[in-house]
Amino acid sequence: MAKRVTKTSGTKKTGSKRVTAARGAGTGGAGKKRGAKTKAPTKRVARSGKMIYSFGVKTDGDGSMRELLGGKGANLAAMTAMGLPVPPGFTITTKVCADYHGNGKKLPDGLMDGVGRAMRALEKQRGKGFGDPGDPLLVSVRSGAARSMPGMMDTILNLGLTDNAVEGLARVTGNARFAFDAYRRLISMFGDVVMGVDYEHFEHELDAVKRERGAKKDTDVDAEGLKDLCARYKRVYKARVGRAFPQDPGKQLELAIKAVFESWSSDRAVSYRRIEGMTGLLGTAVNVQSMVFGNTGDDSATGVAFTRNPSTGENVFYGEFLVNAQGEDVVAGIRTPEPIGAMKDWNKDVYKQLVGVKETLEAHYGDMQDIEFTVERGSLYMLQTRTGKRTGAAAVKIACDLVKSKRVTKREALMRIPAGDLIQLLLPSFDPVAAEGADVITTGLPASPGAAVGRPAFTAAEAVARAHAGESVILVRKETSPEDVDGMHSASGILTSTGGMTSHAAVVARGWGKCCVSGAGAMSIDVANGTFRVGDRVFGRDVTISIDGSTGRVMNGAVGTVDPEMSGDFARVMKWADGERVLGVRANADTPGDARRARALGAQGIGLCRTEHMFFGDERIALMRRMILSRDAEERVAALAALEPMQREDFVGIFGAMDGYPVTVRLLDPPLHEFLPSDPATVSSLADSMGVSHAEMARRIGAMHESNPMLGHRGCRLAITYPEILDMQVRAITLAAIECGKKKVRAKPEIMIPLVGVRKELSVLRDRAERVIARTRKEAGFKGRLSIPIGTMIEVPRAALTAGAIAGVADFFSFGTNDLTQLTFGYSRDDVNTFLPDYLAQEILPWDPFSSLDMEGVGRLVWMAAKEGRAANGALKLGICGEHGGDPASVTFCHKVGLGYVSCSAFRVPIARMAGAQAAIAEAG
Amino acid sequence: MAKRVTKTSGTKKTGSKRVTAARGAGTGGAGKKRGAKTKAPTKRVARSGKMIYSFGVKTDGDGSMRELLGGKGANLAAMTAMGLPVPPGFTITTKVCADYHGNGKKLPDGLMDGVGRAMRALEKQRGKGFGDPGDPLLVSVRSGAARSMPGMMDTILNLGLTDNAVEGLARVTGNARFAFDAYRRLISMFGDVVMGVDYEHFEHELDAVKRERGAKKDTDVDAEGLKDLCARYKRVYKARVGRAFPQDPGKQLELAIKAVFESWSSDRAVSYRRIEGMTGLLGTAVNVQSMVFGNTGDDSATGVAFTRNPSTGENVFYGEFLVNAQGEDVVAGIRTPEPIGAMKDWNKDVYKQLVGVKETLEAHYGDMQDIEFTVERGSLYMLQTRTGKRTGAAAVKIACDLVKSKRVTKREALMRIPAGDLIQLLLPSFDPVAAEGADVITTGLPASPGAAVGRPAFTAAEAVARAHAGESVILVRKETSPEDVDGMHSASGILTSTGGMTSHAAVVARGWGKCCVSGAGAMSIDVANGTFRVGDRVFGRDVTISIDGSTGRVMNGAVGTVDPEMSGDFARVMKWADGERVLGVRANADTPGDARRARALGAQGIGLCRTEHMFFGDERIALMRRMILSRDAEERVAALAALEPMQREDFVGIFGAMDGYPVTVRLLDPPLHEFLPSDPATVSSLADSMGVSHAEMARRIGAMHESNPMLGHRGCRLAITYPEILDMQVRAITLAAIECGKKKVRAKPEIMIPLVGVRKELSVLRDRAERVIARTRKEAGFKGRLSIPIGTMIEVPRAALTAGAIAGVADFFSFGTNDLTQLTFGYSRDDVNTFLPDYLAQEILPWDPFSSLDMEGVGRLVWMAAKEGRAANGALKLGICGEHGGDPASVTFCHKVGLGYVSCSAFRVPIARMAGAQAAIAEAG
Repeated sequence: MAKRVTKTSGTKKTGSKRVTAARGAGTGGAGKKRGAKTKAPTKRVARSGKMIYSFGVKTDGDGSMRELLGGKGANLAAMTAMGLPVPPGFTITTKVCADYHGNGKKLPDGLMDGVGRAMRALEKQRGKGFGDPGDPLLVSVRSGAARSMPGMMDTILNLGLTDNAVEGLARVTGNARFAFDAYRRLISMFGDVVMGVDYEHFEHELDAVKRERGAKKDTDVDAEGLKDLCARYKRVYKARVGRAFPQDPGKQLELAIKAVFESWSSDRAVSYRRIEGMTGLLGTAVNVQSMVFGNTGDDSATGVAFTRNPSTGENVFYGEFLVNAQGEDVVAGIRTPEPIGAMKDWNKDVYKQLVGVKETLEAHYGDMQDIEFTVERGSLYMLQTRTGKRTGAAAVKIACDLVKSKRVTKREALMRIPAGDLIQLLLPSFDPVAAEGADVITTGLPASPGAAVGRPAFTAAEAVARAHAGESVILVRKETSPEDVDGMHSASGILTSTGGMTSHAAVVARGWGKCCVSGAGAMSIDVANGTFRVGDRVFGRDVTISIDGSTGRVMNGAVGTVDPEMSGDFARVMKWADGERVLGVRANADTPGDARRARALGAQGIGLCRTEHMFFGDERIALMRRMILSRDAEERVAALAALEPMQREDFVGIFGAMDGYPVTVRLLDPPLHEFLPSDPATVSSLADSMGVSHAEMARRIGAMHESNPMLGHRGCRLAITYPEILDMQVRAITLAAIECGKKKVRAKPEIMIPLVGVRKELSVLRDRAERVIARTRKEAGFKGRLSIPIGTMIEVPRAALTAGAIAGVADFFSFGTNDLTQLTFGYSRDDVNTFLPDYLAQEILPWDPFSSLDMEGVGRLVWMAAKEGRAANGALKLGICGEHGGDPASVTFCHKVGLGYVSCSAFRVPIARMAGAQAAIAEAG
Repeated sequence: MAKRVTKTSGTKKTGSKRVTAARGAGTGGAGKKRGAKTKAPTKRVARSGKMIYSFGVKTDGDGSMRELLGGKGANLAAMTAMGLPVPPGFTITTKVCADYHGNGKKLPDGLMDGVGRAMRALEKQRGKGFGDPGDPLLVSVRSGAARSMPGMMDTILNLGLTDNAVEGLARVTGNARFAFDAYRRLISMFGDVVMGVDYEHFEHELDAVKRERGAKKDTDVDAEGLKDLCARYKRVYKARVGRAFPQDPGKQLELAIKAVFESWSSDRAVSYRRIEGMTGLLGTAVNVQSMVFGNTGDDSATGVAFTRNPSTGENVFYGEFLVNAQGEDVVAGIRTPEPIGAMKDWNKDVYKQLVGVKETLEAHYGDMQDIEFTVERGSLYMLQTRTGKRTGAAAVKIACDLVKSKRVTKREALMRIPAGDLIQLLLPSFDPVAAEGADVITTGLPASPGAAVGRPAFTAAEAVARAHAGESVILVRKETSPEDVDGMHSASGILTSTGGMTSHAAVVARGWGKCCVSGAGAMSIDVANGTFRVGDRVFGRDVTISIDGSTGRVMNGAVGTVDPEMSGDFARVMKWADGERVLGVRANADTPGDARRARALGAQGIGLCRTEHMFFGDERIALMRRMILSRDAEERVAALAALEPMQREDFVGIFGAMDGYPVTVRLLDPPLHEFLPSDPATVSSLADSMGVSHAEMARRIGAMHESNPMLGHRGCRLAITYPEILDMQVRAITLAAIECGKKKVRAKPEIMIPLVGVRKELSVLRDRAERVIARTRKEAGFKGRLSIPIGTMIEVPRAALTAGAIAGVADFFSFGTNDLTQLTFGYSRDDVNTFLPDYLAQEILPWDPFSSLDMEGVGRLVWMAAKEGRAANGALKLGICGEHGGDPASVTFCHKVGLGYVSCSAFRVPIARMAGAQAAIAEAG
């Protein structure tokens, strides 16, 4: 019996540890097809009056009939057609589900007659009788739509057992414990899934029986105990349902079929389909399959396997099995499964047969498969096959190998690489085995992937000092601000107790490819004493911790890491991807170093160069503060004049690194108070340097406080009120471009004016910038070519709503989907952790809209703005520079909207390149 | 010569003080027709080939030809047709302007020939020659589109003067000073307006001449000085323009006509038309009019008048005049004008003629007129007539009087009442004469209208204590928070140094009809010492100040106030308005007292009952804090249970006050930390009462800090994470409704769930609320009718963008346009003062979007949500409850969108009733 039994039975553990770890890897990416429309049912479906298709011994269906048979049914039919051994059964079509709902929730006439005929055929094939006390035929009932969907009924096993039949099963198998265990599982599963009895009531009885019999584990309960449990379960069932547990196997089957159909219209399933934009599906199919058991003796076994190594991609058969066992035994951990290779010593014929099955399946599906099988009395049965999950590295290797062996085309191979997993190839990660047993202190958000090991530092200055002294430190902060940037850079990793996936810490860390765990809310930090606390545990500067930016786990001690490996296969698949991709890919980068790294990873320009990060050096921050706290424009202009040459040098470096590629420079964006000090010592020294009293300086700083800085005096609003800042920045950009020109570097700057919501903001500032460019050019006596497009970020909802007007004065739009998401939802990225975890847990939101674009709301604004902007200005260039630019589902959306490029942090550039290629291939069909 | 001359000449002072004060009154309201589309030109216009229409002696135009002749031209034609004395001239049509722009900026063939013929006719009519050194004819050139529009060329006077002609004019008038003054004005005006020479250059010369001649005022410069100035002005002109000032009057005229046409396509005019949605206009007309002078002797005069008293509406002729004078003299303030009645002693015939003109104009226009006239050598000339601005009280009285005298219908009368001015009838205001001379300390934002006089109190507690002791206090705070509510209520007025028109202080004050000035940024407050400072001036608790909530002025000392007067006329016009109105009008009210006041002012229900304001009483705030700082749900439920009966009593009172009318109760909305104390003493006592240490309490409070509370854990997000709060509130509402039912009060509660952005937020909370209602009803054993609709505020952009989905689970939408404006623009209401004043001054925004709805951006969301919400749910009720509900332009918009009702603060209810009626009448045409 396969281990899937545990899924519906309330126990949440699944599978054996080692295999499960590999299975769990590689979520997201190509496997995640958000918003994809399902094709309308084919005519063949509509015409068909046939309600039941058989599989196992023979089949009248085939693998292409997903719409009618569902994914599971089609796969069972396919395996049957391939001649693989499948426990016989039949599929009731999705069309019957549609009829059921269209007909006032009544099963169509003749269905149960057909089911009866199909059951008789099954009885013949298996040589058992449904409900027969002599040798009972047991079946499983499973739902299965064309696409998998949470909220639908999963599985009921052992259907056909009754008070009489269970005795027969005990006799036939000579194993009363097995028989009553199967029966008690049927009663509770049927009660829970079909009749809606809360599973807790059954759990309660199980606990009572264990207590009474001194059993520690479920498996300690003997046959007598399980018999008692069956009686108790039946009492629970009767009390809660109001009727006795049905002793007619036919009735059990009919109720189970109806329950599957009902689950199609459950709130959760309906809402899932709505969110995913799944339309045109008929309903769910029902799969009724005869059960086989791997625990009927030493000639029986059960196992799971991958056709290749899912961690490395190596082409070796990879899995494990247990003799005389069912899935339960594996889960309970009493016995250790053996590696699949050992099977040849146990039963060479079955092993050979299984290897043949593996080859057949890979040849058929052209991809690595994840299979489940059972051997019942020496006969192999295939229970399931599906495309296997894999690590990023494995995905790349398998894709290359499959192309090399001509099993698939390059395009097909590309579609099998979960784009999001490519980041694993670029960053270190923890050794899965070591991490498995680690002492987890707490878990935060996986803000920036990678692995970091070090000792906590509690201020930026401390992190810088200790890192300089050669120590590996983890910067531990409540939240980070631009003041902390040096410390963040020095640290091996960053850990914060507040802030979400797009908090300052997360965004900066991702830009650098540095590991970051944010929003670890269980942690409270005591900076004064240099400790952090989680519950009763206190950690100081002397404790080494390990943080996993891919899972959010914070672990005690030094956990072993694995370095990334950039294989030749990686370069190969990226080249194929670039050949398919229509969408441009740029990077968000603020320094020449970032720019070079991004270019090495394939970026074709910089889509977002944040100038504010340039103002945090020691000398610069002092000038910046002086500028901000100036009493008048004159003082401000003087401070800005001192900053200009530094800013110009930054640009010369970045333009140089991106020689020939565009660099979109965003003018100063954050509220100015972000640059101001808060600690009294720095305030004092600033006051001294500006020749005012401490009190006056504190007053000036206090006067800049804002209740909601995110909605305050920032972005282009700064340039409107302090145009001198814009003047300095535009001058620096122009001079840098001229300087590059003299050095034969092809500088291609673009000026991006942030936070525009009103056309006139842009028209006024654009005019001003153009005048500055012209004047600077004239003053520099430069006669060469110099074209500096000027555009804006679309990050305020009003900008999207009035994009037609704004496009008239813009050369380009760059969608700033971070802020657009903040404002469209009304969520502060810095505060969202107070409720977002609850929202995701309760499925109020299907995913974190800061990680993956909200197509329905934010996406609608993007779509409107792109359409209306292009209509108003045919020459308008469109791109996206929010964090979403590196998320595969969002990249697909951008492709569909027809944007020119996406821009993301350097380490996500390969992801964007792959996702862009996949979107293009998917579109081409 | 009329005083309008000053407008184009750079001097900004206009009119005599007394009359101007009255003229300045009554802005906004019906006069302000934002977003109204201008009708497309009629066929008559399109067919017409005639380019020039004359007026004055005779006219071939008439008052209905606004599209072709512009507003000014049509009025001059109308006055001519009525037989009134108008200085002769002619109008070049708007069609010519269209041809000019459609034809590569060339005047159409034959136009200048026609102008020549018209000029010859003028010469004949006036007996003077254009450019004739003997007796020169002078003309003015003015633009005039069908609707007035900033950015278009205003006026050039004295056209026709040349080096020769000026000598002639000096001779004929016997007044060389007058002649050269006219000439220097022509040169500078022509240079500035037609040729684009910066006016400063002329100003500079004027200063030099004054300095050289020891003249203090312009009028101290004698004829010789002005002659010198003419020479200097011509040099400036030549240096800047590159050509000499044209000595050919025909050339002057042609250039002036072209300049008017050019101004039609100036950035400012184009942008104004775009913002105002003015489409279908052909262009601007050009009015060429012969000049008359009121300063040619003691038989000449100039004056301005209203046909009725614009302050009270009394039907008396109201105005002033000056003998032997031009507008300049009035402005310079050397001589005091005489009241219009004194004119009969000066020239009885002219006075009688003027009174006749007044009657004729009122009969023709059916409304109070604002006129300008000049008497040249005993002959009366009408220069202008237009509908006069008036106070709210005058508007109401005039409307009633005009209906009584059958001059207009009720509908016509209603359209003449600027709805926004009605608030003047409900609140005290400062005596205009007293306020005129007041010592203005500083000026903030007119946050809540009215007048208040008192001494400063610097904390809420101080305000409460001193007010209880009988003192009239003004609460002076940096900003207010819900903690200050008691103090705000006790104070006569509220003054804040930060915060905008929709800050906490402003919103709460408007709800109460209490005077508030917010955002007086020049003021710095020292709470510790009990003083506030503006520049060098310091004001303490002992200084009486006066604050004007209608102008934002903060004045030193006690300025005299005028009490409001609710006349019978007011009740009469409101009744007429209610007869026309389609839109419902509700009030925003949080207490039974507010509800009763709102009902008395005509509210038909409560559109927004904010429950958070109910939690600030002494006992309640303690319970509220205990609830917020609970360690777990159990503690929280206990604190909520204690709050429930109080909350229920609140609802019983409000439902009772609104007996029979709906009351929309918004569930708890603000972030919980707003309820928490910040001063250490309160924190300590709270810690004691909850049995935890001060440090622990401070830590818990600190943990609730948010970077951007506006975008944080508030609204329905609270109910998702702490559903116990929703349970308590819904229970209290249900029990209150049941209690009312028993007392035969028709309670009609509606539950409004705030800040929904995702359908599932509403569906989950709605389900929960419905279960609570059902359970409460069952527990109370109530069998009667009880229907409680459940809906949501649309205040998050995403809610508007997904309104179709949300409407499926909502009984109503209430547009929360305050928050919707915040999020659509990305402006924090509390911080907007840092840049909004600059935005308005620089015309980046045409108006404060928190005061009057931004139709283009926020309005588009409202429109989308209303349309898509209705399409998804035909039974959906729609309303608006933002501050915009009391703004006439926004009310018109709501009418057009087809909302069911608007809801505003009680004192704005009459405004909304009137604006609703006007929108309905306008729509009916």
